[in-house]
Amino acid sequence: MTPSIDFAQVEAVLLAAADAAAGRTLPLFRTGLAIDNKLESGFDPVTEADKSAETAIRDIISAAFPDHAVIGEEWGVSGTGPFSWIIDPVDGTRAFISGAPVWGTLIGFAIDGIAVAGVMSQPFIGETFLAVPGRSTYRRGGETRPNHTSGQTDLAAARIFTTTPNLFRGEHWAKWEAIEAATRLQRFGMDCYGYALLAAGHADLVVEPYLNTYDIAALVPIIREAGGAITCWDGSEPTGGGNVVAAATPALLEHALDRINAA
Amino acid sequence: MTPSIDFAQVEAVLLAAADAAAGRTLPLFRTGLAIDNKLESGFDPVTEADKSAETAIRDIISAAFPDHAVIGEEWGVSGTGPFSWIIDPVDGTRAFISGAPVWGTLIGFAIDGIAVAGVMSQPFIGETFLAVPGRSTYRRGGETRPNHTSGQTDLAAARIFTTTPNLFRGEHWAKWEAIEAATRLQRFGMDCYGYALLAAGHADLVVEPYLNTYDIAALVPIIREAGGAITCWDGSEPTGGGNVVAAATPALLEHALDRINAA
Repeated sequence: MTPSIDFAQVEAVLLAAADAAAGRTLPLFRTGLAIDNKLESGFDPVTEADKSAETAIRDIISAAFPDHAVIGEEWGVSGTGPFSWIIDPVDGTRAFISGAPVWGTLIGFAIDGIAVAGVMSQPFIGETFLAVPGRSTYRRGGETRPNHTSGQTDLAAARIFTTTPNLFRGEHWAKWEAIEAATRLQRFGMDCYGYALLAAGHADLVVEPYLNTYDIAALVPIIREAGGAITCWDGSEPTGGGNVVAAATPALLEHALDRINAA
Repeated sequence: MTPSIDFAQVEAVLLAAADAAAGRTLPLFRTGLAIDNKLESGFDPVTEADKSAETAIRDIISAAFPDHAVIGEEWGVSGTGPFSWIIDPVDGTRAFISGAPVWGTLIGFAIDGIAVAGVMSQPFIGETFLAVPGRSTYRRGGETRPNHTSGQTDLAAARIFTTTPNLFRGEHWAKWEAIEAATRLQRFGMDCYGYALLAAGHADLVVEPYLNTYDIAALVPIIREAGGAITCWDGSEPTGGGNVVAAATPALLEHALDRINAA
């Protein structure tokens, strides 16, 4: 039987870890030095920011919850057990190295393989999207408000995001073409920021293939606690990664899955 | 002969007009009301923000320079003469209506059809990119610093932006495929924000077809005064719009034009 957990402490750790990560990522974002080095030598500022930020996040988690498992993009898996923390210190590498403030730090908290709390932090803009059971919250500066999805149920009216249509080239191209043709507005280039905008009611669908667990785990509760629905294309739990669709409502998710799976 | 102009006054008008526009756009950005209306009835929050912001911009310009021409996306052309102001109150419609803070207010100032001063303002993030002859400047909060392009000359190392590859579908698709294959990193979804990031050294190339004058005029001096180069694909002046390429350096522009025109 899974032991109980104090979600107030989980929330405090998520926020503290996101702040610590910002202290490692922001000094490397939009720095000419980092960019020059990236292009002209072997030094990679994204990897440096990633590794340093993940270390800072892991330090805070392990101080609070030393017996929990941690899965990170940079430093791999440590520990086992029912509780796991799933980290992508910089989601949106291309955004980061091209100065676009639509990358994010993702930290998810899962129980028995299902993410139930998480944070997406965009520190340049100063925004945080955070979920714990029963609540999905947007914070910027002194402003705090609940996230609610748009309530959209009509596929033909939906605004859809995906990071780049190139993700679908090859076996999945027909699926992208089908969903693109069925929706009202398409946008590219958002990475994790697109899922956060969906939770806050500004986008209606996000469809992406080949995600890793650290790309999506933190976003799962942010979307679900805001009224949205998210699964893999076969309807299974997405915390572990895979081909994912997120939608403003369960009804819109069903319509999108029908279209994707028919193509 | 063209009369002389006080560029300190031009700069003051650009900044005041951008601030006035922000007062009209921000109250409609990320509002649930506006989005619901957009999707469920005939009211279009983008058009409302556009029209209202362009009116505010025109009021400030005409108070300072009553005899100058004004060309705006929403309200058309007024006046004639050597001096013209070229306005896109909300560049990046899809970004605006999907909550992504990568749209911008564009105001260019041209003499005899060539833009020599301009501003791109992203008020949600609080950033301004501004150029007058001799200077391209980034401002955010209390921070002010010069824009310098990356200095990149190698096409194979270049980071390229375009709003969406769908812009190139049809007659220009082979040109996009050629330039995409020749560059190191491709990003979509930025609209005017991509050109601003190029001026600030974070991206190296932007290529887009079918631009109107108000999509590009303001950005031309922001890029040139930062050390970048920008022309139409045939090498002609881009202030009037058309198929445009912007590059971090004149050498990179030449390499990109060679690739585009060979495809």
